[in-house]
Amino acid sequence: MIIVLRPGASPAQIDEVIAEVKILGYEPSPIIGVAQTVIAAIGDERTHQNLESLTALPQVESVLRVQKRYKLASRESHPANSVIDVAGVPVGGPQFTFMAGPCSVESADQLFATAEAVKAAGATILRGGAYKPRTSPYEFQGLGKEGLRLLREARERTGLKIITEVLSERDVEHVAETADILQIGARNSQNFQLLIECARTQKPVLLKRGLSERIEEWLLASEYLLAHGNPNVMLCERGIRTFETYTRNTLDLSAVAIAKKESHLPVIVDPSQGCGRADLVIALCCGAIAMGADGLLVEVHPTPAEAWSDGQQQITFDGFRDLVAAVQPFLTAVNRTA
Amino acid sequence: MIIVLRPGASPAQIDEVIAEVKILGYEPSPIIGVAQTVIAAIGDERTHQNLESLTALPQVESVLRVQKRYKLASRESHPANSVIDVAGVPVGGPQFTFMAGPCSVESADQLFATAEAVKAAGATILRGGAYKPRTSPYEFQGLGKEGLRLLREARERTGLKIITEVLSERDVEHVAETADILQIGARNSQNFQLLIECARTQKPVLLKRGLSERIEEWLLASEYLLAHGNPNVMLCERGIRTFETYTRNTLDLSAVAIAKKESHLPVIVDPSQGCGRADLVIALCCGAIAMGADGLLVEVHPTPAEAWSDGQQQITFDGFRDLVAAVQPFLTAVNRTA
Amino acid sequence: MIIVLRPGASPAQIDEVIAEVKILGYEPSPIIGVAQTVIAAIGDERTHQNLESLTALPQVESVLRVQKRYKLASRESHPANSVIDVAGVPVGGPQFTFMAGPCSVESADQLFATAEAVKAAGATILRGGAYKPRTSPYEFQGLGKEGLRLLREARERTGLKIITEVLSERDVEHVAETADILQIGARNSQNFQLLIECARTQKPVLLKRGLSERIEEWLLASEYLLAHGNPNVMLCERGIRTFETYTRNTLDLSAVAIAKKESHLPVIVDPSQGCGRADLVIALCCGAIAMGADGLLVEVHPTPAEAWSDGQQQITFDGFRDLVAAVQPFLTAVNRTA
Amino acid sequence: MIIVLRPGASPAQIDEVIAEVKILGYEPSPIIGVAQTVIAAIGDERTHQNLESLTALPQVESVLRVQKRYKLASRESHPANSVIDVAGVPVGGPQFTFMAGPCSVESADQLFATAEAVKAAGATILRGGAYKPRTSPYEFQGLGKEGLRLLREARERTGLKIITEVLSERDVEHVAETADILQIGARNSQNFQLLIECARTQKPVLLKRGLSERIEEWLLASEYLLAHGNPNVMLCERGIRTFETYTRNTLDLSAVAIAKKESHLPVIVDPSQGCGRADLVIALCCGAIAMGADGLLVEVHPTPAEAWSDGQQQITFDGFRDLVAAVQPFLTAVNRTA
Repeated sequence: MIIVLRPGASPAQIDEVIAEVKILGYEPSPIIGVAQTVIAAIGDERTHQNLESLTALPQVESVLRVQKRYKLASRESHPANSVIDVAGVPVGGPQFTFMAGPCSVESADQLFATAEAVKAAGATILRGGAYKPRTSPYEFQGLGKEGLRLLREARERTGLKIITEVLSERDVEHVAETADILQIGARNSQNFQLLIECARTQKPVLLKRGLSERIEEWLLASEYLLAHGNPNVMLCERGIRTFETYTRNTLDLSAVAIAKKESHLPVIVDPSQGCGRADLVIALCCGAIAMGADGLLVEVHPTPAEAWSDGQQQITFDGFRDLVAAVQPFLTAVNRTA
Repeated sequence: MIIVLRPGASPAQIDEVIAEVKILGYEPSPIIGVAQTVIAAIGDERTHQNLESLTALPQVESVLRVQKRYKLASRESHPANSVIDVAGVPVGGPQFTFMAGPCSVESADQLFATAEAVKAAGATILRGGAYKPRTSPYEFQGLGKEGLRLLREARERTGLKIITEVLSERDVEHVAETADILQIGARNSQNFQLLIECARTQKPVLLKRGLSERIEEWLLASEYLLAHGNPNVMLCERGIRTFETYTRNTLDLSAVAIAKKESHLPVIVDPSQGCGRADLVIALCCGAIAMGADGLLVEVHPTPAEAWSDGQQQITFDGFRDLVAAVQPFLTAVNRTA
Repeated sequence: MIIVLRPGASPAQIDEVIAEVKILGYEPSPIIGVAQTVIAAIGDERTHQNLESLTALPQVESVLRVQKRYKLASRESHPANSVIDVAGVPVGGPQFTFMAGPCSVESADQLFATAEAVKAAGATILRGGAYKPRTSPYEFQGLGKEGLRLLREARERTGLKIITEVLSERDVEHVAETADILQIGARNSQNFQLLIECARTQKPVLLKRGLSERIEEWLLASEYLLAHGNPNVMLCERGIRTFETYTRNTLDLSAVAIAKKESHLPVIVDPSQGCGRADLVIALCCGAIAMGADGLLVEVHPTPAEAWSDGQQQITFDGFRDLVAAVQPFLTAVNRTA
Repeated sequence: MIIVLRPGASPAQIDEVIAEVKILGYEPSPIIGVAQTVIAAIGDERTHQNLESLTALPQVESVLRVQKRYKLASRESHPANSVIDVAGVPVGGPQFTFMAGPCSVESADQLFATAEAVKAAGATILRGGAYKPRTSPYEFQGLGKEGLRLLREARERTGLKIITEVLSERDVEHVAETADILQIGARNSQNFQLLIECARTQKPVLLKRGLSERIEEWLLASEYLLAHGNPNVMLCERGIRTFETYTRNTLDLSAVAIAKKESHLPVIVDPSQGCGRADLVIALCCGAIAMGADGLLVEVHPTPAEAWSDGQQQITFDGFRDLVAAVQPFLTAVNRTA
């Protein structure tokens, strides 16, 4: 780390900082500049204490990190792309992955019809929420275990693999009995206890980026999964919170390229949450593929206008067929098969 | 709700929307405007389905809510200020509350010395983290149960009440045995399962605002606690995430006035997290009191430069004494006692 | 507009609002809801006064707009794509446009070498700043008129058209003598006097989106150009300011699709400013094309490490050749020629 | 500056960076760390070129600044508070300043009545916009020169000093004939040519913070005024753009304390723009004073519901009297006279 001292720090004050750097286990290397002194603290920032606490001293202006904070998630530690095996479906390899299905599981009819439709159009993984994190306690909270049962039945009927969200540490075990991928939602992206619990299952985990999570923090959240022994991690960009009000969130497609550059983990894009509007979904899917995404997670519903949650961002069966057709030229452009 | 149709929507398209509004349980009232038609949907928005799903129809431009989404947290439902009884210490009444202590519980010496110092300066509630949500898995995660034991001993020694954070649903029960206030951190502000679990304990809960949580969403999160039967809720503003980099977060003091206006719940301000810099803490405390805060949650450490977490934002014992002295004129200005 | 009254507004208070709505020139249409009354105010929102002022009345909770605020920029007013004639080079039609060149004009050698290189790679328009808006007054402010002279000479040598930024109303006239496109930078996106002055020249104008400008506001800024009689307007997405720190700005590629949907104006993407890092430029260009952009504005420099401004985001001559090659498959995918 | 090299940079690559650092005029001082090498570049960052361009080299991971970028605006360069003489009214000294008046000058009656009312309540400076920067070209743009004439007449009638906004470089000279303070609005905060033009007049200038301007950038914008020879600069916090939608902007009161700490310039707070809602204005004024503001800029109108611009944030004459009374205890708390 680099400790920047205020202009005019006295020799005694500089010595005090040097002494603290030693106490905290780093080797200090002072550099006397034209206007200010800086002290380079040599040592592994990931195994020693963070020196930012030194800004508590009045003569310290700021502390700058040098090293990256994530290890196992980094491209340096694992140069090749990780390919995750989702019950036989590879994610992150040359084949592109379509995950699709309703926001919430509402009924057998709704789920099975959607599963058939998305399978016919080219999806290999079925999404559907049985536990729903809703902003208001008065909104539909999901069918729970009955929803999981319907998801299992949909898998039996279609062969599609299942991705479904888990909200509670206590649900991880039984959700993992149904799910082929455990989905961690944006609001739980830094719910570290939930991450640790999911890591224990060894099931593939799709980790959504938090609403205002920096990319570094997102990779550090994935590091919780990896460091607790689960290498089967997929990242999912689903829009960040900005000042813009035209869309519900601002899908950060640059984050796809950055995550692929910094990390070896597969990156999935959720355009439905990303914009919150059905009319932009296809365009965002084209952009996501061009930016290097490994797959898409798309909300599809038989009659979006009557959906029990987030109807405004769900597309119809026809819409999903159109989407898969529309993205083909971009899959060709990136040399990927569907 | 108000459904805005696109310019040029045909009579058949208007009728389709009117029919959907009826299906979803509202009474439609169309208004033909100069440029566009709008349909007012009459009905209780809190007990009916959200009509935003209608924007899935191509002729619908947007859907505007009319009603507020929170009920139990609202000033309308409870015009008087709520005063929470924290094991005999009232929060939210005429008496102003100082909560202070270290970011993390590190050792008996550190905790007990801090407890004595903050008590001597005027605090009535001791803060201290036993479970720490850290951005990186390689950072200090808290002393856990040993930390809770030390907090209990500090209470016995000083009589201070205890506020400590709970991260995991599975910890709620045993943390509640120690804590007089369960603290929900910013990253868990919309961890609804954790909120529901905390509600069950009937213990006072301090609910921090999420990093990018709108005030409406924060009040809806508090509504989860209230609707699950726990009226002992305090709100805590602790800084929001913005583009500014001078401070770690941007403390949103206007949120204090807004929360007091919209809600009857006590509002506490955390200036330490709010700015992430010890040198701004006193100024922010003065501002918080002027804006109507009911209390402060301040990080205090014997030697901040050597703290195991967030040293840069912790103040010394002398600093806390200075703080309590500095805010007195503002307590006088708002007619509150310390 | 829709005026939402507070729950419990009295009949006299409702009448007061109805009377104000009439005074302000709208026809009021009250709707009595279950919990609240709303008053629809019928009239053209673009030719009447904004009713948001009514929230100054205590019984008014909020005022919701119905109509879009932009007219000439809207797709409704001009369903076909606008194609701008830049001294013979069409922008916004089937042909895709590459604009490239240095951030700042530094010298004859630097500019002419860059012009030759970008022309050889496929660019038809040369960028180069003669007047630079710099955050600090101590940074290089551009070569001014000498820079313009060099740009004219580069045009004579290569036949490339010229895009260059104008900062000052007083410079508009003489910059327009050199420029084929007047560039309005992000910091001046709502400098309406500068926009009006540029409109007068009838020259094509490229209007960058402001750092925290909503898409509606960006289109309204373009409306200043259009309403002052200049139809030759191009929009340019160049990144918005968010909480993310990995990149200098967050390029909002969804804004490309939205601007194309809402408006008929060509949309150009500036990936260099958009991320502030040379290593992401190619990926962002691919994404921009997939999202429907009509052209790119790319910073290219002979030796970026020694550039007088923003070297970190400029690519080399080889880099630009690689970029043009890398995007070909995406141009094919969108059926555009280069 | 500190140049951080990527892990694994070769000796030749390190030498290349060292050579570039010398070319760019700094003295390099390499430090070999455990995981990475960093090179401290010794030299005055304000008089040399920015080394961030070195990140164009593949072996450079990042470049960290050490020095502050503003000089004349800094507390270090001028430890005492600057007190600005506004035609005899001191701003920034022990006396607190109330600036008040309508958003826009609408008529003689409106302006003179407001001037009398705010003077009677304690204001010494009258605000009123003659030139209005409006998001849409179809909104009221101000009375222009007739508005200035009315402001002069209001000054003659009441003795109040005048603050009014200037939008155009071409208007600076004639606006300065009327104004005692030239106001630079948030949208023009980085319109550097306008700042330079205002600097030339030697008139006091009130510089509003831009919608998404970092505090460092705001101080650098003030540095444009100072470096061009005008020391009569006041800063004005007026709310930043965030994700929050309850208010129009988020008033950043922490910025008041930071600006007072970093700089010697007076800091004024505009609560009306800051929240965009009349009902929060008084609370924000109390907070602003507690945080160390030197004055307030408040919008006051005879009948806000009928105001030609921003009625929702303007308060009545009675409201302003109440405001001045309400803030007295806080002025007492900060030892300031009104």
